[in-house]
Amino acid sequence: MPKVKIISGAEELALDAEEGRNLLSLLQENNLEVDAVCGGQGRCGKCKVRVKGAASELTIKERDLLSQLERERGVRLACEVEVEGTIEVGLLSEGDDETLRILDEGVAEELTPQASIEKDYLELKEPTLEDQASDWTRIIRELDRELEINLDLLQQLPDILREAGYNITVVRAGNQVLQIEPGDTTDSLYGLAFDIGTTTVVGFLLDLNTGKQIGKVAMANAQKTYGADALSRVNYTVEEDGGTLDLQEKIIGTINQIIGRIIDKYGVNRDRIYELVFVGNTIMNHLLLGLKTEYLAKAPYIAVINEPQSIPAHKLGIELLDDTVITYLPNVASYVGSDIVSGLLTTNLNQTADYKLLVDLGTNSELVLGNSDQMLACAAAAGPAFEGAEIEFGMNGIDGAIEEVRITDQLEIDIIGDKPAKGICGSGIISLVAELKSTGMMDESGKLLSKEELPESVPEEVKEGLIEDDTNKKLILVDEAEAADQPVTISQKDIRAIQLAKGAIRAGIKILLKEMELEISDIDEVLIAGGFGNYIQPKDAVTIGVLPTAPDLEIHGIGNAAGSGAKAALLNCGQRDEAEEIAKEVNYLELSGRQDFQTEFMDSMAFKEFE
Amino acid sequence: MPKVKIISGAEELALDAEEGRNLLSLLQENNLEVDAVCGGQGRCGKCKVRVKGAASELTIKERDLLSQLERERGVRLACEVEVEGTIEVGLLSEGDDETLRILDEGVAEELTPQASIEKDYLELKEPTLEDQASDWTRIIRELDRELEINLDLLQQLPDILREAGYNITVVRAGNQVLQIEPGDTTDSLYGLAFDIGTTTVVGFLLDLNTGKQIGKVAMANAQKTYGADALSRVNYTVEEDGGTLDLQEKIIGTINQIIGRIIDKYGVNRDRIYELVFVGNTIMNHLLLGLKTEYLAKAPYIAVINEPQSIPAHKLGIELLDDTVITYLPNVASYVGSDIVSGLLTTNLNQTADYKLLVDLGTNSELVLGNSDQMLACAAAAGPAFEGAEIEFGMNGIDGAIEEVRITDQLEIDIIGDKPAKGICGSGIISLVAELKSTGMMDESGKLLSKEELPESVPEEVKEGLIEDDTNKKLILVDEAEAADQPVTISQKDIRAIQLAKGAIRAGIKILLKEMELEISDIDEVLIAGGFGNYIQPKDAVTIGVLPTAPDLEIHGIGNAAGSGAKAALLNCGQRDEAEEIAKEVNYLELSGRQDFQTEFMDSMAFKEFE
Ligand code: FES
Ligand code: FES
Repeated sequence: MPKVKIISGAEELALDAEEGRNLLSLLQENNLEVDAVCGGQGRCGKCKVRVKGAASELTIKERDLLSQLERERGVRLACEVEVEGTIEVGLLSEGDDETLRILDEGVAEELTPQASIEKDYLELKEPTLEDQASDWTRIIRELDRELEINLDLLQQLPDILREAGYNITVVRAGNQVLQIEPGDTTDSLYGLAFDIGTTTVVGFLLDLNTGKQIGKVAMANAQKTYGADALSRVNYTVEEDGGTLDLQEKIIGTINQIIGRIIDKYGVNRDRIYELVFVGNTIMNHLLLGLKTEYLAKAPYIAVINEPQSIPAHKLGIELLDDTVITYLPNVASYVGSDIVSGLLTTNLNQTADYKLLVDLGTNSELVLGNSDQMLACAAAAGPAFEGAEIEFGMNGIDGAIEEVRITDQLEIDIIGDKPAKGICGSGIISLVAELKSTGMMDESGKLLSKEELPESVPEEVKEGLIEDDTNKKLILVDEAEAADQPVTISQKDIRAIQLAKGAIRAGIKILLKEMELEISDIDEVLIAGGFGNYIQPKDAVTIGVLPTAPDLEIHGIGNAAGSGAKAALLNCGQRDEAEEIAKEVNYLELSGRQDFQTEFMDSMAFKEFE
Repeated sequence: MPKVKIISGAEELALDAEEGRNLLSLLQENNLEVDAVCGGQGRCGKCKVRVKGAASELTIKERDLLSQLERERGVRLACEVEVEGTIEVGLLSEGDDETLRILDEGVAEELTPQASIEKDYLELKEPTLEDQASDWTRIIRELDRELEINLDLLQQLPDILREAGYNITVVRAGNQVLQIEPGDTTDSLYGLAFDIGTTTVVGFLLDLNTGKQIGKVAMANAQKTYGADALSRVNYTVEEDGGTLDLQEKIIGTINQIIGRIIDKYGVNRDRIYELVFVGNTIMNHLLLGLKTEYLAKAPYIAVINEPQSIPAHKLGIELLDDTVITYLPNVASYVGSDIVSGLLTTNLNQTADYKLLVDLGTNSELVLGNSDQMLACAAAAGPAFEGAEIEFGMNGIDGAIEEVRITDQLEIDIIGDKPAKGICGSGIISLVAELKSTGMMDESGKLLSKEELPESVPEEVKEGLIEDDTNKKLILVDEAEAADQPVTISQKDIRAIQLAKGAIRAGIKILLKEMELEISDIDEVLIAGGFGNYIQPKDAVTIGVLPTAPDLEIHGIGNAAGSGAKAALLNCGQRDEAEEIAKEVNYLELSGRQDFQTEFMDSMAFKEFE
């Protein structure tokens, strides 16, 4: 009988398994913790493990859900693996999952922890009449370097030293002393990485000594009360006195709540967190810093700052040590933020001769095409359709949202949380439109065919869902009986909204190719960044023609690349410099200034493959 | 008839003068402004002018009142000069007097203004769709350097730039931007130097572009309500909760009042003052920064910090731009502060092979002996007798204080402000004791002789003033009729207090000589620093044996060396580095740790010349 060796942190466990045994069920039977949000259907991508040895071949679902680098590192979805002989299985703890992404993906090999915060433990000599050096002189003499100390800490210094019996740990960022702690605290060195999304904010707690992620906490961005999308928040700041401050308070509030939860959940001492690196789009970055966004949003679209600065926590009202260093990765331009720079950093897009296309789909869809020679970025104003807005039953990807639709002999519908359907989210819409296209229920122009025009092959049951009135055609996805409140439908109008979004992105990609004098066939890989990117099936994106296709052109979701970049920069100063280099190397192409964009946009409307 | 050419700033004036004409009276007659506090008696030293050409020889009074460097530069006391032929006279305005001290004395030749604050005027290009660089990028791109900007300023940046039409002046200290001003303000660059004395605080306003002193304002140190001397203020901080804060508030209050007066008086814009450099003794330095002084005052006498740090004005509550840089010169040790380092800096004591002795007489008397090879400092606890305390009629050098006593055929007494006498100040006591010694009214042991023992040569009128009771002898200086309230006397007990002070200082000097293996004859010059030093006659100090004497040994007052050092450091970064070097080079000798100090102290008591 095949042996399965399970490795979980420092512990090991040996199990027997029948040949052909499903790995997820084996793990579950033995009470080994593996996330299986989709219940083993190969859809959530949460049941990641690392597998060595005689396991079944990689499935198509795994190709879709695992990044190339994960695959190279032997990461598998447990629900898709069958035991074929003796294998070794590495479990990834909640934290490890993310550590893996930083440490084992892309940034990988070189990323030994090298935080910008350093600690030195000093056993100082007590003063005597023969050695009257000042308190401060004792410290700099021992460290043999020039240092700066702020006044508050200096005022506490004599008591700290004497109470600690002159055995202290100096915490510093370069030459700036942040804290002086009694005794030897060199073991405790923590930092936070934050991905500030328009919708969701995620905070990651990292041990800066080991490079390990300890955990993470996600919460909704409290700015949402001022508008779901970034631009409506900008409008609020322009229209309301003190609006910038309101929005800054909201995001700082969210950050403080996340920090509070992280401290509760992982039992780390608030005073041992010395640095916070955040990433986000340029608007989120500006709002967090309390910077005017007005000029970001109107031509010629000028940011206040793109370059990183260090800000002490107390200046922002972030509830950490007063001098905890808050910093951020650089932005490229007003519509290409540090989240995108993070994506370039974690995928090493700038380091190989192969051309890669990084896309982050959303209301503002960022696109970067490049390799080690050149990188060109643009932002396509896709509108919020992909995020479910401007769609009659559109909604966020939360419980009750249809997240995937397949047309087989019937309408197969997946609903988040397996609850009665309330609406449809972005990935659901894209899969639905792709299926409508594939089945011929919609033509290339985006027109829903009427019942009479439908091809034979469309199952009767699906046909029946099509209803037409004078002005609009609709397809019932979930009828009244099964829906939460009312039938969930998609209409011709909804499809037009998707079409505009898709057209803008496709036109953006075409302009990038044209500017760089490249063909689709020159692109080696398409990387889908952003939370949303994790949920769309690449094949759907190809089917509706938003992403290009070509033989050997791989398309992957790269997960939360924004968070990964923030973590990499937090852990390793070299990554921070690298991010600055990348931001400088990327050229930004303003589409609104281009006459050819409108032409490309019109040409990109058709729902046909993008070749 | 001799011609006198008067030069005052940019103006010139030609006068005729009889041969032998007194220069001061010539100037006064022509309504030319010269200070003559002592009315032309050659005692106040205020009537300084610069003279070239056929003038009378330097008088003894001028030797006493002018520093060697002043003399080398042609500075004379107008009241002592007779016109002998054609001469050129340079008038020194209120400010120039001080400029002279910095620019023409010691620090002199090399001291071209090179402030640590720099201004760059930029005419930036307005943003367009073709050039979407961020506001900040525009600035650093133009300056072609990395810069840091604080959050408050960054928040104002977009409006500043747009309101200024992109023509701005960037004010920075190194890489740190302090301010961004609309238009070209490079002409306006001011700084303040502060001499924080235990008794008096003086603020100097300097134009950092030209290096000129614009003016100065002096006020009493408001900390005096917590004790006249520094140690009683330290005691207050030890005994009262929040005492350190109370004292910090007081000195900050004084500084703010001085700044207010400077702004009113000289019409400078508060927002164009970018730096403040202060000096003072180590206790004043600590109290200004709000640092605990407890450990300064008790063995082993440890300072919190001696090294300079930069502190933004708002952190200290100093009413200048939030980020005006507040800094200070380094201290050597708990009892040798930055005021002494200033003295070393302005006299270039560390730059010649000649040995010089710098003394700053006071309750804590600082002594530094050295040359370019070695410098050794110590602090002698002289007690407050030299400052008039512990003396029955002792008082500060204010109106009504006897400041000089001479015994000729009678008691000749000078009173400050020519008011009825209230008491006697430090310089008065020293001159009196010197006269008592010279006339033989007091013997070497410090004993006042009784009427019968007095030498014949003592004038009858003086003898009559001597009164004896059972326990004490007293000499009446001013009798009831002429005194403000009651007769002003000096007693045997008062003389004993002076004797202790003198003994401590002389013992300190002896220990320094011994440690450095030098003889008095190795000392080339004695420099008397500190406000008090300006008022004592060197010959009196020699007579009572507090300062050494030897053929060719010159003794000079060097004026407000503390203020001069602060000004030099403000004007020129090189001087700041030099001060740091000096503070590191000076070795500090703790007298309280030495057994031989008591022996030397006893040996130093006698009122006889110190050879
Ligand atoms: S459990 Fe969801 S993909 Fe495996
Ligand atoms: S007027 Fe006082 S010294 Fe000349």
